[in-house]
Amino acid sequence: MPVSEQRMKDVLTAYVEGFAAGDAEALIGLFAPDAIWEDPVGTEPRKGIEAIAEVYRHAAADTFLTLDTEIRASHGNEAAMAFTVDTRHEGRRLRIKVIDVMTFDEEGRIARMRAYWGPSDVTVLDAD
Amino acid sequence: MPVSEQRMKDVLTAYVEGFAAGDAEALIGLFAPDAIWEDPVGTEPRKGIEAIAEVYRHAAADTFLTLDTEIRASHGNEAAMAFTVDTRHEGRRLRIKVIDVMTFDEEGRIARMRAYWGPSDVTVLDAD
Repeated sequence: MPVSEQRMKDVLTAYVEGFAAGDAEALIGLFAPDAIWEDPVGTEPRKGIEAIAEVYRHAAADTFLTLDTEIRASHGNEAAMAFTVDTRHEGRRLRIKVIDVMTFDEEGRIARMRAYWGPSDVTVLDAD
Repeated sequence: MPVSEQRMKDVLTAYVEGFAAGDAEALIGLFAPDAIWEDPVGTEPRKGIEAIAEVYRHAAADTFLTLDTEIRASHGNEAAMAFTVDTRHEGRRLRIKVIDVMTFDEEGRIARMRAYWGPSDVTVLDAD
């Protein structure tokens, strides 16, 4: 049975909330074991939950996501959301405007993530 | 030479402006001859500029797009934007929350469009 729109939107909401809580394990738990993770789009993807988990264990504590508009579903097993990331990188505060597209497996787990943002979507806010 | 972030954002801005002007030919002119067009994601794509042109000639006059947040680029040849569509379908006014992902060819034309929206992203506003 294909994943429902509501399930996909719930998972994306949980993704935003996982960052709000700084809960890396909750974020990792949203992904399928063999998930593919391309952030940003145009770079080499990470493959598999262990490679993906590294990112969230590193970033969950000081990264915050704010939705810019409602999460979108589709007529298939994909959903998308536009949000603003506030994070820290090499002692600088960064704000990044991102659109994530997620593909879901039949169990409602994220099988693929693609994050759309380019250098022109990043703003350096101030020193730490 | 790959397409620049600025070029991709300019084309997506022109896409929004093409609807504002009701200019179907301007919209069609943004696409590559062999473009693939999947709207909404999860349905059978249209292939080639003639099949795509039909849609814009039908919809340009009474469809309006409003960006919900800034257009996003990527580190590759893709860009994305979140917007609200106001349109008319079978005598009803519809508002649809959409995220479009566009892939560009080396000449900066849209080679592929994928539009993310599901039934849950559509609101019927009122009768015509």
